[in-house]
Amino acid sequence: MLYFASDYMESGHERIFRRFLETEGEHLTAYGSDKYCASAAEKIRAACACPEAEVRFLSGGTQTNQIVIDLLLAPWQGVAAAQTGHVNTHEAGAIEWSGRKVVTLPGHEGKVDPADVRALMELWRADGSREHIVEPGMLYISHPTEYGTLYTRAELAALAEVCREYRLPLYVDGARLGSGLAARGTDVTLPVLAEYADVFYIGGTKCGALFGEALVFTKKNLPERFLTRIKQHGALLAKGWSVGLQFDELFTDGLYEKLGAHAIDMAEKLKSGLAAKGYAFYIDSPTNQQFIVADDALLQKLDGEVLYGFWEKLPDGGTVIRFATSWATKEADVDALLAYL
Amino acid sequence: MLYFASDYMESGHERIFRRFLETEGEHLTAYGSDKYCASAAEKIRAACACPEAEVRFLSGGTQTNQIVIDLLLAPWQGVAAAQTGHVNTHEAGAIEWSGRKVVTLPGHEGKVDPADVRALMELWRADGSREHIVEPGMLYISHPTEYGTLYTRAELAALAEVCREYRLPLYVDGARLGSGLAARGTDVTLPVLAEYADVFYIGGTKCGALFGEALVFTKKNLPERFLTRIKQHGALLAKGWSVGLQFDELFTDGLYEKLGAHAIDMAEKLKSGLAAKGYAFYIDSPTNQQFIVADDALLQKLDGEVLYGFWEKLPDGGTVIRFATSWATKEADVDALLAYL
Amino acid sequence: MLYFASDYMESGHERIFRRFLETEGEHLTAYGSDKYCASAAEKIRAACACPEAEVRFLSGGTQTNQIVIDLLLAPWQGVAAAQTGHVNTHEAGAIEWSGRKVVTLPGHEGKVDPADVRALMELWRADGSREHIVEPGMLYISHPTEYGTLYTRAELAALAEVCREYRLPLYVDGARLGSGLAARGTDVTLPVLAEYADVFYIGGTKCGALFGEALVFTKKNLPERFLTRIKQHGALLAKGWSVGLQFDELFTDGLYEKLGAHAIDMAEKLKSGLAAKGYAFYIDSPTNQQFIVADDALLQKLDGEVLYGFWEKLPDGGTVIRFATSWATKEADVDALLAYL
Amino acid sequence: MLYFASDYMESGHERIFRRFLETEGEHLTAYGSDKYCASAAEKIRAACACPEAEVRFLSGGTQTNQIVIDLLLAPWQGVAAAQTGHVNTHEAGAIEWSGRKVVTLPGHEGKVDPADVRALMELWRADGSREHIVEPGMLYISHPTEYGTLYTRAELAALAEVCREYRLPLYVDGARLGSGLAARGTDVTLPVLAEYADVFYIGGTKCGALFGEALVFTKKNLPERFLTRIKQHGALLAKGWSVGLQFDELFTDGLYEKLGAHAIDMAEKLKSGLAAKGYAFYIDSPTNQQFIVADDALLQKLDGEVLYGFWEKLPDGGTVIRFATSWATKEADVDALLAYL
Repeated sequence: MLYFASDYMESGHERIFRRFLETEGEHLTAYGSDKYCASAAEKIRAACACPEAEVRFLSGGTQTNQIVIDLLLAPWQGVAAAQTGHVNTHEAGAIEWSGRKVVTLPGHEGKVDPADVRALMELWRADGSREHIVEPGMLYISHPTEYGTLYTRAELAALAEVCREYRLPLYVDGARLGSGLAARGTDVTLPVLAEYADVFYIGGTKCGALFGEALVFTKKNLPERFLTRIKQHGALLAKGWSVGLQFDELFTDGLYEKLGAHAIDMAEKLKSGLAAKGYAFYIDSPTNQQFIVADDALLQKLDGEVLYGFWEKLPDGGTVIRFATSWATKEADVDALLAYL
Repeated sequence: MLYFASDYMESGHERIFRRFLETEGEHLTAYGSDKYCASAAEKIRAACACPEAEVRFLSGGTQTNQIVIDLLLAPWQGVAAAQTGHVNTHEAGAIEWSGRKVVTLPGHEGKVDPADVRALMELWRADGSREHIVEPGMLYISHPTEYGTLYTRAELAALAEVCREYRLPLYVDGARLGSGLAARGTDVTLPVLAEYADVFYIGGTKCGALFGEALVFTKKNLPERFLTRIKQHGALLAKGWSVGLQFDELFTDGLYEKLGAHAIDMAEKLKSGLAAKGYAFYIDSPTNQQFIVADDALLQKLDGEVLYGFWEKLPDGGTVIRFATSWATKEADVDALLAYL
Repeated sequence: MLYFASDYMESGHERIFRRFLETEGEHLTAYGSDKYCASAAEKIRAACACPEAEVRFLSGGTQTNQIVIDLLLAPWQGVAAAQTGHVNTHEAGAIEWSGRKVVTLPGHEGKVDPADVRALMELWRADGSREHIVEPGMLYISHPTEYGTLYTRAELAALAEVCREYRLPLYVDGARLGSGLAARGTDVTLPVLAEYADVFYIGGTKCGALFGEALVFTKKNLPERFLTRIKQHGALLAKGWSVGLQFDELFTDGLYEKLGAHAIDMAEKLKSGLAAKGYAFYIDSPTNQQFIVADDALLQKLDGEVLYGFWEKLPDGGTVIRFATSWATKEADVDALLAYL
Repeated sequence: MLYFASDYMESGHERIFRRFLETEGEHLTAYGSDKYCASAAEKIRAACACPEAEVRFLSGGTQTNQIVIDLLLAPWQGVAAAQTGHVNTHEAGAIEWSGRKVVTLPGHEGKVDPADVRALMELWRADGSREHIVEPGMLYISHPTEYGTLYTRAELAALAEVCREYRLPLYVDGARLGSGLAARGTDVTLPVLAEYADVFYIGGTKCGALFGEALVFTKKNLPERFLTRIKQHGALLAKGWSVGLQFDELFTDGLYEKLGAHAIDMAEKLKSGLAAKGYAFYIDSPTNQQFIVADDALLQKLDGEVLYGFWEKLPDGGTVIRFATSWATKEADVDALLAYL
């Protein structure tokens, strides 16, 4: 079997597990107050060139999104997001379960256009009934998006500009940030994210970690009583150091970057190979998710031999499928996939 | 420094970390559908002598309590618990945050008396205004309790009996179950728990795991759409196998039992030593938490040398403090503590 | 000033106030258990030709929508509604505040198309990730819609059919039902609604009542512990009879019908007059809300003389405005408005 | 039948209904922006000698309590209340349903002792685990209490003092305030309440109104976006004037005071009569709720002839029952009850 279904279906990186082993016999303080969380935070601040950043560690993406949205919004506000945003589509209603509305914006290959944000805010402000309408109180974007696309630095700057104008915190979901940072030609780096985003998270689960995400508040805007509030959400880990240590290792000797770069190398090889063979891409993705349009013959060929992701059925009968590479994808597997196709 | 502050402030067991290392290069399906979760569940079912049990894995205790209570109650019900129960005192309002009331019962050294449950239910039933009163819809107990005490098998049977009579699911919080099962003289085993409890969890975080709890539904009562609902709570791990594998190891060659037994051995040694030196116990605890009454001189002596838990100030000026042993406590540290006192 | 801004900005009907006066000195049981609620429910059952209907009385529309959606959905479900539905646009996030997602469907002049419902359900069912996607668990429609349009009996039947196929309760928001029932040419009557809807409410606030809505469960589907659950929502009135009595009067001698018919008569007169004067309608509404496209000159002319509702700004610079008639609109005012324009 | 079961089981006052009639044909702006709400607020400010008070009108007591508690607390806080407080006992979990914990204090004949508040706060502050414990964020008291008892001015001052010290807003539930203000010997007036309470409500439902409560914010502390937030709670009335007008009438010519005084007159007459006949009082209540201890013979005698409230069963077999008088109780009925006993 060839595995291209997703990027969270492999184990974690060996170096992380070795670090766990090295902790044998250690006494570690609880709830994230330990030395590994401190060290990881320090390394992340350095990588972000943002000395005032406050870093916290959580277990998973939906949990992180739910917490950020709940804690940053006023009770009468909702979060603006692309119609295709993960918080709107694939989080089982976790945002609404915690009381918040997702106010949808058009998605442009997964991305949000500043003009749409402006229009939304102007509409709300101009509406005589706005007291009856959920006020958009922050902007959620993902980078890479759910379609593998990336913002440019200029696009992030433009979003940050419109957000500042309307006082919307800009939150960037970086579940696949490792792949995004390593994409060829991108000018979005961690310092760029730290400059434009008010909050973002660096995804660990999909980039070598066993589990865990690093949440970065860049503007001295850590919500009050953070520890208590994440405990209300069931998200406080007694052994918080278990996430801190993983990020401490990921941010040692550029491991996080290397893992992202590997995912991109594999994706680029796959992309070139698919293009050479004449496959039609559904979208031009520069990251580790590659979407092609498959006919039924191809689907049959893949069946039982290649694991991939089903994306959507097109009106003309074609099927959009996704091949995802990861930090752990073997080059031999990419070769085998291309050979098989 | 001597470490007796709590039982979740050491790393995880080496064997678990070695198992993580062995997963290098593996492909593992997501969300708990993997082979390690399956294997762990099978071993737990065997250990519980409960072949029909359904086992699920979550990250931490408060999260597990919040989920069990939310999913087992009808929307108009609350959970009955001892005034001193963890869900009532130390979960930052996580139960209420998810919409549920904790209906309190008297605590008897941390334990719930069946007569109090009966009285609560009869009061509710007899009340002409009961439609305006939260109906107790399940019973929460902890074993060991927050005071280190244990139920006997007969006591559990009596609670199960009254719960059955009033159709209250009986839920046992086993955050420290490892220590409870290993306590000297206890007749409560995993099969006993599986017989009397409708749901219980086997605590991993405080018994050698890096993190994680194993939730056991014993009566074919797994709540509908469990996966979706824990995702709403932000509790679904992409790499669910990371908890399953830990329990798979803990339930191999009796590791879980051995770790619990070690904690008890250390606690018993400490208890005897403290008694021999004439220290006054606040409560007679058969498990890994030992509570003594300290005067100011003792507190001063401990300061900076021994880490312990502050419990409460007594009216007469004494202070209840807690020494906790764990699966990782070194015998030399117990000796050193006793020598120092 | 001429008043055409909305249909809830006049007092209540004199006959209702006289009924209140007649209760002087009466003893009335609490929480809706009184004789007036019983009598009103009986009359509504008769008007609906639905002897098994269960009728309950609430204070207002958003409260009613929040309660119906919360009580009819399973915890993992959301409510499907047109993008333009009131629950999605103008309820300040009350649906999400109580934990539920609104899953949006295209709006066709405010109406929902059965084909869109089918497509939504098929998409959800076919999606391999559906456990991560909110399951649509009921269908919300409004009749009349937010654009004044009406379903035909055949359209309701088709919606009910698709809802039955996918086991979605069909809920009809009848905030303006009085006007809808009286519209010319409609074949949707109360018995038709009772046949096709699983739940609907008969709006009182906008049809002569001081406040209050009558909620009708038509399929022996009154949610369990209804009284307790609406109290949790803060919606239980001690003097529940205060709503029951109003509906008792509204359903005496056809008052509800007459008030709806008056609103329609006034709307039709206004509509003809506007058409005769060459005004452009934004939508062809058969009910008490009439939408025209105004230029700036018209807006200026209206300013300070006529109260109307602002609806939206069109791309070409025109403005959609709404004139609403009501049960209390004076014919002289319609004449005056037409004369003034 | 003689009616002494409660004080919300009679109609409303004739003068209120006449005012409703007088509104016939009026145009009234929506959501509480009307002239009647404005006039009622002005009269209440005057009666409270609190020109800066902000007054809002809601439908019922549980709704008001839920809203005040939700809006005044930070998300990590809970409300402190007597164990016997209405929010803890008889609101069907409405407080918890909106996410808030009720932190209980001892009840002293229904009242809260400042020393208990201080002890609670000091305990919380001193606890090393306080980040895991719900922080008490406001104090709820009722006046009269659920046992008919009253605070003195000095007691209120002492509570306000401890609340100020610990920055707890003091909230007074005045569901039965009409009776409380009229009690013999009380030195608590509306200006006294306005001085010491940060928020309180003046109960209308139990003092002549058809429905409705007047919520008074005395310290320029109206929560932000009040209208939007009460709409999220389903509590915003389109015809908000329907409550405002009632309070406008209740605060005209001292009607509210007179109705309260009548309830007290009837209660005092009943109390003296019962005392003369040798009945044992369970508690010495100065307000409209009178609690006596009944034996089985008395219960049998009352059955079918007198409506009363069941309160609780005493250990010795006696039964506490409540006779409630109201603004509408007829003196002849008190005479008849006394004659019958």
